[in-house]
Amino acid sequence: MSLVLHNFFRSSASVRVRAALQLKGLTYTHVSYTLRQGEHRSPTYLSLNPQGLVPALQLEDSTVVAQSLAIIEYLDEVYPKPLLLPSDPLDRAWVRGLVHSIASDIHPLNNLRVLQYLGQELDVIEAGVTTWFRHWVAESFTALERQLADDPRRGQFCYGDSPGLADICLFAQMANNRRFEVDMTPYPTLATINTNCLELPAFVDALPESHPHAG
Amino acid sequence: MSLVLHNFFRSSASVRVRAALQLKGLTYTHVSYTLRQGEHRSPTYLSLNPQGLVPALQLEDSTVVAQSLAIIEYLDEVYPKPLLLPSDPLDRAWVRGLVHSIASDIHPLNNLRVLQYLGQELDVIEAGVTTWFRHWVAESFTALERQLADDPRRGQFCYGDSPGLADICLFAQMANNRRFEVDMTPYPTLATINTNCLELPAFVDALPESHPHAG
Repeated sequence: MSLVLHNFFRSSASVRVRAALQLKGLTYTHVSYTLRQGEHRSPTYLSLNPQGLVPALQLEDSTVVAQSLAIIEYLDEVYPKPLLLPSDPLDRAWVRGLVHSIASDIHPLNNLRVLQYLGQELDVIEAGVTTWFRHWVAESFTALERQLADDPRRGQFCYGDSPGLADICLFAQMANNRRFEVDMTPYPTLATINTNCLELPAFVDALPESHPHAG
Repeated sequence: MSLVLHNFFRSSASVRVRAALQLKGLTYTHVSYTLRQGEHRSPTYLSLNPQGLVPALQLEDSTVVAQSLAIIEYLDEVYPKPLLLPSDPLDRAWVRGLVHSIASDIHPLNNLRVLQYLGQELDVIEAGVTTWFRHWVAESFTALERQLADDPRRGQFCYGDSPGLADICLFAQMANNRRFEVDMTPYPTLATINTNCLELPAFVDALPESHPHAG
């Protein structure tokens, strides 16, 4: 039995794990869940992943790992080639700092369940949801552009010239941003890194529209 | 020069780092920022931490590490006694999965800047903010209770009988919950783990009210 990725084509956290698997050249099969139909809340899925969120990675022995960052750190430890985090602790901390500026400070605020809550529970109109989405992106992207523009650790990617975990998170966020037409003019460094990601099949194949069950 | 923690007494992410430093027996000094007064957005602080959020840890050589989870993982790598994450990759992945259920799925939605946005930008009344806060806690706590209640990896703490990163995140979230009077009746396992944390000075000393600049 190979690796099985429980995921949804458009989920940004799913995009991250697909990119990581593909950067490492790991083969896997998909099980797809349609979030708007609540398929990730079914008893069958909850028995696999009690957190009821996607993605989750099912290993060869059927063990299930939940949470995209936990999955990717696990993959990086067990399949270290190529490494997605630097080997030096201080460099790793710097990259993780970039990672969380997206994975903790943007994405949790802008995923489907939260946007649905805004609309359905708080009666926020569509324009207000768009403003919300763009606000949290701008907060972190402004900081990240400032951090990355002149940092000598940056190369073609956030850290050096090989793609890693920060690029994966940036790339997945950029894919999400398209639906809200985020203006990238203030963030030329981030835009360039994303363009560099898009030159690699591992990233292109992780995009929502590349997913076998996109639709 | 010793370790310097840039933090705010009530910030949940600051509580996490204080607990981690204290569990490892590391000495540090405080620089405090009052978030409601925007002190974390001052040019001086932005020059230290371009992300403009607390906490940030300044190391002996003045290098600054941002983001609570990046700081704690760094500390765990450089000062491994006691380890806050398991040494087995799969166990570590499981603990990180618990960590992100709080650190990614609750805390980013319930911190001060987001609650302020709800009130100030979206005109959500106080009762609506409380409902929002409790909703995201309940989503993750329900899942975590389900995950932890019968898992053989759990002991007095989330993983075994020594406190670790998942306990730190749970404890910090519980400290935050007090202001919104979250009913813990549905979560007896989580409540017990928090009680076990409260028996250790390293945790008690990390609470907002223990902070030298609380007020």
